Amino acid sequence: MAESYVLTNARLAPVEHEAGYSMPGAIVVDSGMIAFAGPDDETPQQYQGAPRRSLGGRVVTPGLIDCHTHLVYHGSRAREFEMRLTGATYEEIMRAGGGIFSTVEATRAASNEALLSGALSRVDRMIGEGVTTIEIKSGYGLDVETELRMLRTARAIETHRPVRIRTTFLGAHAFPKQMSADEYLTQICLPALDAAADEGLVDAVDGFCENIAFSAAQIERVFEHAAKRGLPVKLHAEQLSDQGGAKLAARFQGLSADHLEFLSDEGVSAMAEAGTVAVLLPGAFYMLKETRKPPVERLRAAGVPMALATDCNPGSSPMTSILLAMNMGATLFGLSPQECLEGVTSNAAKALGLPDAGQIKAGMRADLAIWDVDDPAELTYRIGDAPLHERIFGGVAC
Amino acid sequence: MAESYVLTNARLAPVEHEAGYSMPGAIVVDSGMIAFAGPDDETPQQYQGAPRRSLGGRVVTPGLIDCHTHLVYHGSRAREFEMRLTGATYEEIMRAGGGIFSTVEATRAASNEALLSGALSRVDRMIGEGVTTIEIKSGYGLDVETELRMLRTARAIETHRPVRIRTTFLGAHAFPKQMSADEYLTQICLPALDAAADEGLVDAVDGFCENIAFSAAQIERVFEHAAKRGLPVKLHAEQLSDQGGAKLAARFQGLSADHLEFLSDEGVSAMAEAGTVAVLLPGAFYMLKETRKPPVERLRAAGVPMALATDCNPGSSPMTSILLAMNMGATLFGLSPQECLEGVTSNAAKALGLPDAGQIKAGMRADLAIWDVDDPAELTYRIGDAPLHERIFGGVAC
Ligand SMILES: [Zn+2]
Ligand SMILES: [Zn+2]
Repeated sequence: MAESYVLTNARLAPVEHEAGYSMPGAIVVDSGMIAFAGPDDETPQQYQGAPRRSLGGRVVTPGLIDCHTHLVYHGSRAREFEMRLTGATYEEIMRAGGGIFSTVEATRAASNEALLSGALSRVDRMIGEGVTTIEIKSGYGLDVETELRMLRTARAIETHRPVRIRTTFLGAHAFPKQMSADEYLTQICLPALDAAADEGLVDAVDGFCENIAFSAAQIERVFEHAAKRGLPVKLHAEQLSDQGGAKLAARFQGLSADHLEFLSDEGVSAMAEAGTVAVLLPGAFYMLKETRKPPVERLRAAGVPMALATDCNPGSSPMTSILLAMNMGATLFGLSPQECLEGVTSNAAKALGLPDAGQIKAGMRADLAIWDVDDPAELTYRIGDAPLHERIFGGVAC
Repeated sequence: MAESYVLTNARLAPVEHEAGYSMPGAIVVDSGMIAFAGPDDETPQQYQGAPRRSLGGRVVTPGLIDCHTHLVYHGSRAREFEMRLTGATYEEIMRAGGGIFSTVEATRAASNEALLSGALSRVDRMIGEGVTTIEIKSGYGLDVETELRMLRTARAIETHRPVRIRTTFLGAHAFPKQMSADEYLTQICLPALDAAADEGLVDAVDGFCENIAFSAAQIERVFEHAAKRGLPVKLHAEQLSDQGGAKLAARFQGLSADHLEFLSDEGVSAMAEAGTVAVLLPGAFYMLKETRKPPVERLRAAGVPMALATDCNPGSSPMTSILLAMNMGATLFGLSPQECLEGVTSNAAKALGLPDAGQIKAGMRADLAIWDVDDPAELTYRIGDAPLHERIFGGVAC
């Protein structure tokens, strides 16, 4: 029993229709996992001698999960932001060296050390908000070596910080100007996927299905390759137009389809049937001053699980705050505080295919966030605050 | 010279048309004040023997100033936030015990200790973002004693934290249901103003001029009283409708008119002529899902100084992040990053009538923020980040 202990007087925020305990309860942690969560007097016999620590009636949530980020990158795009504010067009920004290719160039040129230290500074902000799992995508390399370096950097974060990283291969993010999309897929993206998968760097495969990126047919080539490798897929879909991406992702039993502002009814049904999670990204919606919102009411009615994430990236969402993503999910998209909380816990875990995270119950990892609030809804309501009292990662307070 | 030192290798962000130094420069601090800021080789003779410390080429801005907050209050309104998200009307919220009167009730009932500790937790968030001056309003008492307690609490913050507080009497925020607005002014608000001023608790006098609060004629009564006491005025004006509040504030040489979504051309001209600062509050605009923006282009054209603030309050802007107010000022209102920076430094100082803050030059207080960014525009561009390296308050790093 050396590695077990009991957290008492914990107010468990209700997640995933688990009953929350208005009467404070107990959480038993054993070897980094949750062995029990519930009323204190139901604590299993074998843990009754374990060390106990009171949480003073504080609200406890699962450790938060940011299930969609591009946080390994180099170079700022503040200058481009400034140009956009003064009315510069997309073309003018590209001519001035802005846009995604400026990030590609800076990322290719960055040393491994610079890539890692930039990523760690963003990870540290997230850890300060109770995040215990972060998904990170490649996609600013667009050449084999840089795609691999991005994923290796993402993996390396786990050895520098107490946080769990899930890597997503996003070679199909954009394609270099000097070749066609299909040439890029054949010559670079799919070989890079193979090399990354061979090195064990890929937990899932993603793409950007949009009229300014890859068509559904091109994404299908990537997904078929992923299927051959036994890798789950997810997709940037229906952000700026309806390309049928969500339906495609659902057909491949995709873990998630992300953005979804232009999602059709057909797409909603396909996702519901496949159990594909809708990952909503209000930071990009806000930053790009979009006006068309994802169809939250239809997703809700169809029972599609909804997750929220920062989409942390230097172009459309230079945001490191998952709590702000929750507030924006409520304020901009109309999610309830409860939906926002499930969006960064249980549903975010589903979007990453993680069976052992995002809930507080026996069998889950002991990844917890303990908050100085009276009500879990405060986490969504406050803007620009992070009332974290303590974070527990794999059973260890840190 | 014991109390003087030189900060070298500082990249001074350009504020208030002061030339910024692309070549890192020096800041001489003497007895808590800035004695010199400029090229290192122009450092005055008498400081050449003073201790020197390099800032490593980091960007330095004036300490940030949050010039409009209501951060002394008690009670959360997360529940009301939740009701609004699910479509509850204003009346339903009021019936359920929400709205400003719920904050009034909770504030009246709170102990001095509870008021202070709640306020300090919000102040700490601001300090963590490089804020060195905060304006705090009364207005949740609506009785003499609680208005005074709010202002005393605000003043007390200075003895608990290294931060400068400016207090604003906002008795004319709302009026209790059991009396008319004019009765409230006569019986409670003006006597409370006198009592607060007698106790030295009032740096400025504010009001809420709106169809759901006080008319311009009623606010005029308050302003005349303030003038008699020799106190400067400012006003919540034109937030939800055009009541001619900005013109009224300008007629009284108001320090600022705040919100201004419905500001008329006449109001713009009056403010320009009087030198009244336009304090823009994008957090409330965002939270209330407003669609009409303040007339930024007309304010700019007329040369009205624009400031930005959090409006930190439990109802319409539960926001403690001045950096997010900067991002929202740019993203939602179209201010440039440079305007956002001046909005929380030099122009915020003007909105508070502070001649010794908001700029880095000889004669100013040594209130500084030192940042881990390459470009001051990063402060506006990033969302939910606070890349503060060090804060200096009255010459002391803290
Ligand atoms: Zn993305
Ligand atoms: Zn206000």
